[in-house]
Amino acid sequence: MSLIPPASIITLTTDFGASDHYAGAMCGVMLSINPQLRFVDITHQINSYDLTDAAYTTDAAYRYFPAGTIHLIVVDPGVGSGRRAILACCGNYYFIAPDNGVLSAVFMQEEDVSVFEISETKYFLQQVSATFHGRDIFAPAAAWLSTGIEPASFGKQITDYKLIDLPQAQLKEPDIISGQIIKVDKFGNMISNITYQDIESAKKKWGKQKFIIELGEAKITNLIQYYAQAKDKQPCALFGSSGYLEIVIKQQRACDILGISVGQHIRLIYL
Amino acid sequence: MSLIPPASIITLTTDFGASDHYAGAMCGVMLSINPQLRFVDITHQINSYDLTDAAYTTDAAYRYFPAGTIHLIVVDPGVGSGRRAILACCGNYYFIAPDNGVLSAVFMQEEDVSVFEISETKYFLQQVSATFHGRDIFAPAAAWLSTGIEPASFGKQITDYKLIDLPQAQLKEPDIISGQIIKVDKFGNMISNITYQDIESAKKKWGKQKFIIELGEAKITNLIQYYAQAKDKQPCALFGSSGYLEIVIKQQRACDILGISVGQHIRLIYL
Amino acid sequence: MSLIPPASIITLTTDFGASDHYAGAMCGVMLSINPQLRFVDITHQINSYDLTDAAYTTDAAYRYFPAGTIHLIVVDPGVGSGRRAILACCGNYYFIAPDNGVLSAVFMQEEDVSVFEISETKYFLQQVSATFHGRDIFAPAAAWLSTGIEPASFGKQITDYKLIDLPQAQLKEPDIISGQIIKVDKFGNMISNITYQDIESAKKKWGKQKFIIELGEAKITNLIQYYAQAKDKQPCALFGSSGYLEIVIKQQRACDILGISVGQHIRLIYL
Repeated sequence: MSLIPPASIITLTTDFGASDHYAGAMCGVMLSINPQLRFVDITHQINSYDLTDAAYTTDAAYRYFPAGTIHLIVVDPGVGSGRRAILACCGNYYFIAPDNGVLSAVFMQEEDVSVFEISETKYFLQQVSATFHGRDIFAPAAAWLSTGIEPASFGKQITDYKLIDLPQAQLKEPDIISGQIIKVDKFGNMISNITYQDIESAKKKWGKQKFIIELGEAKITNLIQYYAQAKDKQPCALFGSSGYLEIVIKQQRACDILGISVGQHIRLIYL
Repeated sequence: MSLIPPASIITLTTDFGASDHYAGAMCGVMLSINPQLRFVDITHQINSYDLTDAAYTTDAAYRYFPAGTIHLIVVDPGVGSGRRAILACCGNYYFIAPDNGVLSAVFMQEEDVSVFEISETKYFLQQVSATFHGRDIFAPAAAWLSTGIEPASFGKQITDYKLIDLPQAQLKEPDIISGQIIKVDKFGNMISNITYQDIESAKKKWGKQKFIIELGEAKITNLIQYYAQAKDKQPCALFGSSGYLEIVIKQQRACDILGISVGQHIRLIYL
Repeated sequence: MSLIPPASIITLTTDFGASDHYAGAMCGVMLSINPQLRFVDITHQINSYDLTDAAYTTDAAYRYFPAGTIHLIVVDPGVGSGRRAILACCGNYYFIAPDNGVLSAVFMQEEDVSVFEISETKYFLQQVSATFHGRDIFAPAAAWLSTGIEPASFGKQITDYKLIDLPQAQLKEPDIISGQIIKVDKFGNMISNITYQDIESAKKKWGKQKFIIELGEAKITNLIQYYAQAKDKQPCALFGSSGYLEIVIKQQRACDILGISVGQHIRLIYL
């Protein structure tokens, strides 16, 4: 179990968007419990109800924060139902989220994981709605945790927390790495689940280094290091800042030009 | 008059959007006056010039903040004209806004209300533009207030502050509750102005509990408690986190599917 | 060289959008170095790769912050290439940015400018990616600067920093001020690069005060002081909050109605 004391920093990752009062109300609830808190928005633009998007986004950001940071993730299609609320101590960080798999990527990364159900109602808002546990349960739990309340005080430790399948790239015969697009970023860059480690494994397994990339109808042969190396209008591949292979077109929205969205298969075919 | 000392927390509710420097410049002005301030965005996506939207959004968020919080609302189509700037002490909170009715919902909620005109130019930015009082008047007033300047120092107390009509649901013969859609949220959920109290009043008045909901061409008979209870593709009704009846479709944008926007009439027809 | 000590306030201006983890990860990196930091978003909605948009937006906001504020600007199409990272001390403010011209407007405004290359790798993140220097170089440099590290410690002083052409309005014969639209704001107001000073110069040079404005197919004759003075549906001109002439239509998106976008020529034709 983590022994790092919680920081007064709380990050927010939600699918609430920017046009409603939802995220603001959560911050108000938290400041009412701990006026010293500071907030960092990771994003409020997770695709509505999309647990996979939330899992990847959380994974891309959480480790860059100071030890003790409390990461609050509210993508919660099951709000009001029997799904549990959880507090997870994972390595140097704390996570507060619904028990619906949004923390799966973190659970896969971190070795030192303890998870507690959040069931102690004295840490809830006085009146709990059936539709906004972000404000009524998750936010107050995060704020109370930041004041030094022990994780075990929120509820019993559990081990059957939910995990969702986050698709991994696979090495397939004959000599193909098979993956998929897991994210399209603001620039229209398409991020796959193929890692540098997958390329290394392929090299070791098949003794080959040369491949072409197949994505929809495009065949991509240029592997570059940074965006400015790309030739105008030509789709290129590079390893992005989270360690995943991504497909880009120089200063253009590759996803629109190639007509690709999240879930599309991508294959590295070794020659 | 409120005796709660102002907190160093300022919330922002504007129609400035996220692509311009407007909100950032306001924060800069405030930090120049009080470097200890912390900001919470409620939203900058109020529909342009929409006082009703601003009034509802402010109402949904303000009470979740610590006592003494200063709520800054800048939706200001009359900027530069004769409309006044006001500082309102309402219960445990302070509000800084143009005197155009954006605080109407707060004025209706709170019993203890004192309103002051903001006219003392020494609390303005040195040069006041005719088009951006958010930066030049409202932001500096909020920041000076946070430093402990008395509300009465900003200008004379007034009682003729502006109120706008926020439509209330009505019980009509024969046995109908008549309301309207006042907000569509990021998920496409359509929030009406019908409250749980309206349902209770109808029950008492007419001795009836069963109703069907008419919204545009849809007839809705399912009243559920939380989103996950909805059956796929079927419009349902529930009481949302602000206490209003809302119409939803499970994990879909009900507003798009039903073709409904803000202002649409909604009727509960008792059987 | 600026002797103002750096504040614990960092502003962010990027083209990262709101849907990815990029800005959040930068804040995490900075808080890991200096947990006392507070952030103000200017905007993350700079048009992708648009150095001119970033230069104008930075210029419109930076001077409203307390002396010592560190302005972090990451619009960086050349990330990973040979382009330098710079730390600029300009008057009362610090700027951290790629050396690609995004600071051109600031360099034109401020008389007291010293610029340092950021090359000392001990102030970088331990592992530097080729695609996200915002997180790996610019953010840590800003945070280290905020802790009191001397600007000269980051690298050698340079004078050949890059400047981009920011188009200035011009007085042309016969009796025309020729400019262009440099920004369309959230309200659809079209901001030109024509300043009040340009109008004063024209008056002095040509002894004339009366002009009509030509923008696309529109001829505009109404010069007003604030938005509410505009007559319904009629395009009007006024001097906006940053001192530039802008073309507006009362409570409507003038850019859409007139079919105008950034770069469009605008002419004041003196009569």
